[in-house]
Amino acid sequence: MKIAILPGDGIGTEIMAEAVKVLNVLDLKFETESALVGGAAYDAHGHPLPEATLNLAKSADAVLFGAVGDWKYDKLERQFRPEQAILGLRKHLGLFANFRPAICYPQLTHASSLKPELVAGLDILIIRELTGDIYFGQPRGRRVAVDGHFPGAEEAFDTMRYSKPEIERIAHVAFQAARKRNKKVTSVDKANVLETFQFWKDVVTEVHAQYPDVALEHMYVDNAAMQLVKAPKAFDVVVTGNMFGDILSDEAAMLTGSIGMLPSASLDKANKGLYEPSHGSAPDIAGKGVANPLATILSAAMMLRYSLNQPEAADRIESAVQAVLSAGLRTGDIWSEGTQKVGTVAMGDAVVAAI
Amino acid sequence: MKIAILPGDGIGTEIMAEAVKVLNVLDLKFETESALVGGAAYDAHGHPLPEATLNLAKSADAVLFGAVGDWKYDKLERQFRPEQAILGLRKHLGLFANFRPAICYPQLTHASSLKPELVAGLDILIIRELTGDIYFGQPRGRRVAVDGHFPGAEEAFDTMRYSKPEIERIAHVAFQAARKRNKKVTSVDKANVLETFQFWKDVVTEVHAQYPDVALEHMYVDNAAMQLVKAPKAFDVVVTGNMFGDILSDEAAMLTGSIGMLPSASLDKANKGLYEPSHGSAPDIAGKGVANPLATILSAAMMLRYSLNQPEAADRIESAVQAVLSAGLRTGDIWSEGTQKVGTVAMGDAVVAAI
Ligand SMILES: CC(C)[C@H](C(=O)O)[C@@H](O)C(=O)O
Ligand SMILES: CC(C)[C@H](C(=O)O)[C@@H](O)C(=O)O
Repeated sequence: MKIAILPGDGIGTEIMAEAVKVLNVLDLKFETESALVGGAAYDAHGHPLPEATLNLAKSADAVLFGAVGDWKYDKLERQFRPEQAILGLRKHLGLFANFRPAICYPQLTHASSLKPELVAGLDILIIRELTGDIYFGQPRGRRVAVDGHFPGAEEAFDTMRYSKPEIERIAHVAFQAARKRNKKVTSVDKANVLETFQFWKDVVTEVHAQYPDVALEHMYVDNAAMQLVKAPKAFDVVVTGNMFGDILSDEAAMLTGSIGMLPSASLDKANKGLYEPSHGSAPDIAGKGVANPLATILSAAMMLRYSLNQPEAADRIESAVQAVLSAGLRTGDIWSEGTQKVGTVAMGDAVVAAI
Repeated sequence: MKIAILPGDGIGTEIMAEAVKVLNVLDLKFETESALVGGAAYDAHGHPLPEATLNLAKSADAVLFGAVGDWKYDKLERQFRPEQAILGLRKHLGLFANFRPAICYPQLTHASSLKPELVAGLDILIIRELTGDIYFGQPRGRRVAVDGHFPGAEEAFDTMRYSKPEIERIAHVAFQAARKRNKKVTSVDKANVLETFQFWKDVVTEVHAQYPDVALEHMYVDNAAMQLVKAPKAFDVVVTGNMFGDILSDEAAMLTGSIGMLPSASLDKANKGLYEPSHGSAPDIAGKGVANPLATILSAAMMLRYSLNQPEAADRIESAVQAVLSAGLRTGDIWSEGTQKVGTVAMGDAVVAAI
């Protein structure tokens, strides 16, 4: 087994070092190979996703990804910006199914913005389609408007689109995931306005016929943004498109109060995947040794379970993280009165010790 | 002055009756004329926005709108569904600037999902562009895909677009609104992925040069969805496109806990406007006399202030609503232990009495 290690920018290198340390004590047979990605790759090679990095990711059995991005790249042309690396990896590896669990860890309930009774025990799974929608739809660009409110004016445009097989495959992923959970899927759309999402709703309903044991509800995206705030525990599996999923998965992650703890997986049709923390590269705290490595460590656990067929090893990591939290260790982002503040390396060491 | 009264469906007629009652005690010179809209208009005339209703709205100085929609219309072809009425009114009246205040009323802080310290005193203004973006962009429809992941498959598509003058005029509205508030604008985009919103960001930045006294920050939509949960009070004026504004304004409204209380205004370039509560038609409680009429009553106040140049009358309504809340009267949606539960009519009567 080969794991591609792509630390990236900002806190990426620090948190990745801890995840690799944890993987190394598990006594599994795998090799790792690292490569630059994002701003770090641009600095060294002039491109955020160099050919060699992409080839490594393609040849590996799984990719563990840190985070990319820094304000210093904001002025670059779009194609050279760090986030193009993650978009490129999703596209070239065909990672169409993004799993973003929004879990409120019992030890961290107080860290949520929401009242404790609304989030205690929260465990929802957002499944976001990741290679279609307005993220990749062509045509896009700038031009002179020929119609609309100001014909003759300069305008910019993008194309939202979904084909039937794209919707079908993500719907199957969602219904199958719900079968292993509480058997309920909420499909989020904007069928009252968008042709794309009326089609989405129709196709999801069609696929649902094959899963009579799973309940399906449809919800408009604006209502979903509200219901997540009002009663997040009413959800089980949420499935939606790339753009709506970007917004709702971040909203849900922040609602938990545990965003420094949340892993994510992006899978292709053969369950090969890229695993990354749900949080970003946090350039403001990079290099200070204070970042929370647990989301990356838990991403490594997800990788062992989904792509590398090592569920026991995944369990061992997850139990160790629970033990460390229960022992009261906290990085700054999740610290509260009465718990012990530790840095990135100490947190990683504690997980290793607990394993 | 002529006010068009469009009650609509569900609780629309009940809440509108209270708003009209309140307007009538103000001793102002205006005439009102009512018309059917939404499902009610479809039932009577076969179209959710009949010609006569549209003409009334066009000829009036302002439109007071209740709410539209009911599950029983879900199976209709899109063009006949109730929400097409609101989209049609926005388009035909040129209502490009949607003002959605997200206010946490001091008497209702406890009703929020958020911890009280995060929302107490919250007062932000979301300005959503309302006649452009993917809501109205052409082309849109279904076709056979010629490229993408599954060439040859059936697909649906929509077009996101913004022209320079469309962005400029909404940016001016936002900067001018901020001048009357805390002089800060957050422009929400997705410039890292979408051509349309890179252009949005560029044009907003350009317009900002004319408002050196107002601070401008740019934020990605996914981050905005998070920051609204984490620290809503950090915002003052938020300006964004039609689609992102739909999602974020609903999220923000729900965060306040006061959604049954929130009015909204949709204005054209001459400040003629349509005013409606931020909540929907709530068919589940329609006809029961329990709906909260305050958002509609406060929408009437906004109408007096923005379109009818009657700021004192607007103040009188708003003070009366405050008085009624302070006296402890609550409809079911905002009721809590120790306050007095009243129905729709009693709430309207109480506001009238307080005036
Ligand atoms: C960095 C950006 C392009 C990306 C996205 O929008 O998908 C990020 O927000 C995410 O959710 O992984
Ligand atoms: C009913 C629907 C078309 C509408 C919208 O999406 O704009 C509604 O959600 C709103 O925000 O007024």
